[in-house]
Amino acid sequence: NNNSMLIQCVGFPFSTCCMAKSKYEYVKNFEQDDRLLPNTWLVLRVDGRAFHKFSPAHKFCKPNDVRALNLMNAAAIACMKEFSDIVLAYGESDEFSFVFRKETKLFQRRNSKIVTAVVSYFTAVYVMEWNKHMLIKAPPKSQVQVLLDKNKTSSSPSLEPGTHNKPKDNTIDNPDQQAQDDGDPAPLLYPPQFDGRIVCYPSLQNLRDYLTWRQVDCHINNLYNTTFWSLILLGGLTETEAEEKLKTTLSKDKNEILFSGFSINYNLEPAMFRKGSTIIRKPVEKTITKMSPKR
Amino acid sequence: NNNSMLIQCVGFPFSTCCMAKSKYEYVKNFEQDDRLLPNTWLVLRVDGRAFHKFSPAHKFCKPNDVRALNLMNAAAIACMKEFSDIVLAYGESDEFSFVFRKETKLFQRRNSKIVTAVVSYFTAVYVMEWNKHMLIKAPPKSQVQVLLDKNKTSSSPSLEPGTHNKPKDNTIDNPDQQAQDDGDPAPLLYPPQFDGRIVCYPSLQNLRDYLTWRQVDCHINNLYNTTFWSLILLGGLTETEAEEKLKTTLSKDKNEILFSGFSINYNLEPAMFRKGSTIIRKPVEKTITKMSPKR
Amino acid sequence: NNNSMLIQCVGFPFSTCCMAKSKYEYVKNFEQDDRLLPNTWLVLRVDGRAFHKFSPAHKFCKPNDVRALNLMNAAAIACMKEFSDIVLAYGESDEFSFVFRKETKLFQRRNSKIVTAVVSYFTAVYVMEWNKHMLIKAPPKSQVQVLLDKNKTSSSPSLEPGTHNKPKDNTIDNPDQQAQDDGDPAPLLYPPQFDGRIVCYPSLQNLRDYLTWRQVDCHINNLYNTTFWSLILLGGLTETEAEEKLKTTLSKDKNEILFSGFSINYNLEPAMFRKGSTIIRKPVEKTITKMSPKR
Amino acid sequence: NNNSMLIQCVGFPFSTCCMAKSKYEYVKNFEQDDRLLPNTWLVLRVDGRAFHKFSPAHKFCKPNDVRALNLMNAAAIACMKEFSDIVLAYGESDEFSFVFRKETKLFQRRNSKIVTAVVSYFTAVYVMEWNKHMLIKAPPKSQVQVLLDKNKTSSSPSLEPGTHNKPKDNTIDNPDQQAQDDGDPAPLLYPPQFDGRIVCYPSLQNLRDYLTWRQVDCHINNLYNTTFWSLILLGGLTETEAEEKLKTTLSKDKNEILFSGFSINYNLEPAMFRKGSTIIRKPVEKTITKMSPKR
Repeated sequence: NNNSMLIQCVGFPFSTCCMAKSKYEYVKNFEQDDRLLPNTWLVLRVDGRAFHKFSPAHKFCKPNDVRALNLMNAAAIACMKEFSDIVLAYGESDEFSFVFRKETKLFQRRNSKIVTAVVSYFTAVYVMEWNKHMLIKAPPKSQVQVLLDKNKTSSSPSLEPGTHNKPKDNTIDNPDQQAQDDGDPAPLLYPPQFDGRIVCYPSLQNLRDYLTWRQVDCHINNLYNTTFWSLILLGGLTETEAEEKLKTTLSKDKNEILFSGFSINYNLEPAMFRKGSTIIRKPVEKTITKMSPKR
Repeated sequence: NNNSMLIQCVGFPFSTCCMAKSKYEYVKNFEQDDRLLPNTWLVLRVDGRAFHKFSPAHKFCKPNDVRALNLMNAAAIACMKEFSDIVLAYGESDEFSFVFRKETKLFQRRNSKIVTAVVSYFTAVYVMEWNKHMLIKAPPKSQVQVLLDKNKTSSSPSLEPGTHNKPKDNTIDNPDQQAQDDGDPAPLLYPPQFDGRIVCYPSLQNLRDYLTWRQVDCHINNLYNTTFWSLILLGGLTETEAEEKLKTTLSKDKNEILFSGFSINYNLEPAMFRKGSTIIRKPVEKTITKMSPKR
Repeated sequence: NNNSMLIQCVGFPFSTCCMAKSKYEYVKNFEQDDRLLPNTWLVLRVDGRAFHKFSPAHKFCKPNDVRALNLMNAAAIACMKEFSDIVLAYGESDEFSFVFRKETKLFQRRNSKIVTAVVSYFTAVYVMEWNKHMLIKAPPKSQVQVLLDKNKTSSSPSLEPGTHNKPKDNTIDNPDQQAQDDGDPAPLLYPPQFDGRIVCYPSLQNLRDYLTWRQVDCHINNLYNTTFWSLILLGGLTETEAEEKLKTTLSKDKNEILFSGFSINYNLEPAMFRKGSTIIRKPVEKTITKMSPKR
Repeated sequence: NNNSMLIQCVGFPFSTCCMAKSKYEYVKNFEQDDRLLPNTWLVLRVDGRAFHKFSPAHKFCKPNDVRALNLMNAAAIACMKEFSDIVLAYGESDEFSFVFRKETKLFQRRNSKIVTAVVSYFTAVYVMEWNKHMLIKAPPKSQVQVLLDKNKTSSSPSLEPGTHNKPKDNTIDNPDQQAQDDGDPAPLLYPPQFDGRIVCYPSLQNLRDYLTWRQVDCHINNLYNTTFWSLILLGGLTETEAEEKLKTTLSKDKNEILFSGFSINYNLEPAMFRKGSTIIRKPVEKTITKMSPKR
């Protein structure tokens, strides 16, 4: 509660009556110049903080919540509209990377200014558009969810044959788990938090490698998560059991678990889950009226 | 509209099938270490961006809007609760300064992490608590507003005698102006934006001088604004005329304009307007039960 | 004299008997990481400090001292041998720029380490090779010096016709001036001092523009200096008069002064004076023994 | 040899005839502001680079060479005279730390400027004063050297009883070793190299702890080295054997080895070896002539 804080509207004991502002302005000199190297691509990555708690608290679908991803995309699009020097954005999970053109002079390329303005704006949009995106019954998109829904509505809960495909209906310890998987509309319970950082990349190759790095991260995490939650939601394993089972698996092993265990073809998972979201500006169509040459 | 952006869920043309993450991880080395000097006070200032547009768009009362200041205070208090190393916060107008204790190890003192996390959280709370604070008919607190309300309700619109105290009712060009002054409940129309920066202060004297610098800034701006809006709202001047009239005035001249022109005693203005808001943690009372010594 | 300093070999009063090193090692954390952005050209410029005093104190020839330039070149070559990641060096006057290849990992690209090691080495070589380069009677190379020598040895001191070509022999106020122009061998009187800084350039175009910037600087300064010292040494003007005369002149005016006043064709000045010294590594000739194909 | 480098005095192919300097000056914007935090103690440490090779190459006495330490002290004193904001210097082995007063405005506190100027000056003095300090037959100061000298001149090379105190005269593999120990005058064979870095310390306690940290380092290294070289020079061990023997020893063990093996009392070693050199400015005596009051 707010009782733990005291708001006071008092003159600081150390302030002087004369209010000579210039006497104190020397403190401005302690601010350090943080302008970023010119002629480099600025890549600003926004990351959700503690979303491993935030997403279950708000009952995000597992392994992916389309609504939550759409909300991230909406916040990213708003940032691209607000900051016109962003040429591309790439998002996956609870993070978004924004690429500023090399020549940007935004805030004289001051690091703190740029990173805080974008993170602040991203956060504001995320909160403002929460209800629009999250307070809907989202269509399940992952095959995991599709199967889960089918199981729930069908009388026979039999899944694909396999060791772990016991009906999970009676094995759930945590009643919230069920709700979580439903993608039920969830109001914003507490303020989300994002952090950010800017990295300069001198060459186009570096920039490409950065984006590929994030996309590989997306792939690895999504394959893991899809398998992990299949084992739990469809296979009835506990989180610990699923973690243990996946410990030493390679990509092909996970693909195999999905396919032979649950008839899930990973490559048929929605592209947004597997590859993330890349946002670019639409090329503007310019109508060029071609004049007939004079003779 | 969102039509100007394209969302694509495609593999980057430069990504490889093998997904060797380690091949791309070298891009992490481009991130620069931005840890702040240990054993210094970290002062993080959050500033509203373009609030000269945001506040009239949301019809903030002039010269001060108690509701908006309370909202800023609420966001600051939330930050102090979330980040326990903040020992003091000082706010005025659309800015808030947070003082972290010298020994803080928050995010290993990484500049970008700290500044973005706090600015993001501040923004999220500001948006989430907007309705709670702004959708009320706030009590006018400045004498300017009190007089204005009195004038509106009284049949005789005569103000203090003076050259400029014509009834303003008929002189308003901009109908929004009237609404603006009323402090009418205003929904959040577009995302607010805050930026931030961290400055290290090595000594307590530097820290005190920083806070005094901000408080002097508060005083100077508030005296100016109170006089400026009195001339406009009560005296019927245009903004340009008011600006012109105040151009070369000193503090005592502004006090004199307020008093002789509008019977406003600046020193009776609410302390929060004149001195800003200082937030500290309430000292915790610990009940120590002294055991009587056994015999 | 050294009497103003006290050398003491005492234990600090604050040191402890137990000598627990770990207790104090926390002070290492105050050192800030200053690694330079990868994949950028590092350009390290070494600049003579206070050489406007150092060069007359050591009687450098005016407008240029071949010996002093050769000494700079020797120090630069030594640096290129010591630091193998330097791919090019460009020198003019009392400065030298060293270009490190983009991929250099020298000292993990730590700014302070690189800049101090190179500046230290440059300084050491400059001092060690001083006698070798400076204790010789250098051949005058600038046409200014050639003419001056001719004048000195000829009985008739008449120069080119012109307003200012009074014989200077009797007009010299400062007897040192005469010696200065002779390029007399001069022992090193006091320690020279160089400072340095590193700048990162992301693209080849930026690097080229940097080098051009320095060469344009060389050109502008050398044309000015050649004209300035012609007016003084050959034309008999005082430094103040020469400065005044050149104040508003353009390049073509200076060329004209040189040519019509002293028959000096600026374009015939030694290339090292006009264009600076560019040092590159000699391409290594590798003898590739071509094996006759087996049958 | 210099044959590996090419000096060229050519216009860069990319330079333009018109020499518009302003066109290229944009490259200055790539330089980053590196001003150090105000109101902090600046500690600049100069370190010899590769002195583990430099000192044997120049036959420094082991475990300590008084001449080399005096040369370091001389360079440090010169720096303190040149840079008047240095209030204290502390040296040990091949390093020297300079403490600048908190208020220093030297070069506007620009990191690169300060560190390179001091390192350059230190290096220049070190080279210039080499002959003065090193080309003398220095008095051996360590008890190790005293004993070694005694042994050499005495007919009976018997040392303290012990397993390792075989006369070493015939066991020396490396003839240079002998010379090395003599402290023979040695001309400067190649340029020495120093690097440097500046660290900001906000409080006096941090500064004290820094200096103590260096002094503890001095103590630990010197006790080790004294024991190490006693074992080799007096005890006849090889370097590998000595290293092995000292591997797990504590301070008291090393003291015991010195005392029981070689009758060396570590505490009687010269204070400069054990505690380093602290240089401060002599307090200036000001004669204040008191005027008799007029009547």
